[in-house]
Amino acid sequence: MREERKSMLIVISGPSGVGKGTIYNKLLDNDPSLTFSVSVTTRGPRPGETDGIDYFFISDEEYQKLVAEDAFVEHATVHGHSYGTLKSQVEEKMEKGLNVVLDIDPQGARSVMASCPDCVSIFLLPPSYESLRQRLYGRNTDDPKEIERRLGNARGEIEQAHLYQYVVVNDNLELAYDQVSAIITAEKQRTNRFFPVVE
Amino acid sequence: MREERKSMLIVISGPSGVGKGTIYNKLLDNDPSLTFSVSVTTRGPRPGETDGIDYFFISDEEYQKLVAEDAFVEHATVHGHSYGTLKSQVEEKMEKGLNVVLDIDPQGARSVMASCPDCVSIFLLPPSYESLRQRLYGRNTDDPKEIERRLGNARGEIEQAHLYQYVVVNDNLELAYDQVSAIITAEKQRTNRFFPVVE
Repeated sequence: MREERKSMLIVISGPSGVGKGTIYNKLLDNDPSLTFSVSVTTRGPRPGETDGIDYFFISDEEYQKLVAEDAFVEHATVHGHSYGTLKSQVEEKMEKGLNVVLDIDPQGARSVMASCPDCVSIFLLPPSYESLRQRLYGRNTDDPKEIERRLGNARGEIEQAHLYQYVVVNDNLELAYDQVSAIITAEKQRTNRFFPVVE
Repeated sequence: MREERKSMLIVISGPSGVGKGTIYNKLLDNDPSLTFSVSVTTRGPRPGETDGIDYFFISDEEYQKLVAEDAFVEHATVHGHSYGTLKSQVEEKMEKGLNVVLDIDPQGARSVMASCPDCVSIFLLPPSYESLRQRLYGRNTDDPKEIERRLGNARGEIEQAHLYQYVVVNDNLELAYDQVSAIITAEKQRTNRFFPVVE
């Protein structure tokens, strides 16, 4: 049997604190067909970060040039630093036959969904707003003002979950991971991506 | 968290001998959200078959009346006996919140896909024509002439695999089952069927 496959772009999004990063890392660890896209950023490298691996560290001027060239599938400026996902990065990896997964905030996810309509889009939901609050405070990485801002954003983001193709509730991490993993397994079998030839 | 789900109709098809029945039975054994539809037939009950459980056994006149009433999602006459899947059966089970799985030949599958465009459609492929031949002869339930007729049909059926949403190669039964099962898990998480409300 001969077969051909078309690579896919997978967008995993959800409100801050829902556990996107954990599921994303677990997917990359377990499925060798998946890879990530190295983003660009205008912030400086933190200790231990390597250019081209953690990020492509670029200047504000280079960033503005890329924006002008429409080089991003999504980009955003947060607290004075800019970040973006390069079309060239995503395309290069997909041309190698890899499926690219993006762990991305809802604003960026909507940009990607608009520019890549055949991407696979998954939105993660918390079981409750209270659980999201507890996770954000438990993470202990942000001050209370920032946490409250994120919780405020979460309401609007969650109301737009229906814009994604799939929704998964992250109440139990194992179960949520299994559901996301099943979505990726299923999407690989779609007749618009998988072309087996019986001989 | 409150949630609502919309039931789905799942069509599993493929050429004769591909292993549809085995995967179908395993799905019904393992996923309590799934159920089957009892078909009607004009043939008489075989020893051990019970009316309303294995089939609804009906007369030719009753069958013709149902055809005239457009009561079937699919129906066919094979070797002088008629078979059909009743719309009322499928709808009744879906209204109870169950997902209905049909194990059905490609001709019937195309009828179902035409009348229920939001069904989930999965086509099973053999790894090769030779493997299909071996399975049909190994099953030992049909005479060689009938087997060759089925193998002849298989070519045309396999060429239409792209009409289904998903295609799964049944080379290794466990792997094929896991892929079909992942498709069903994924489809349950689709935002047009699953409506969770975060509170």
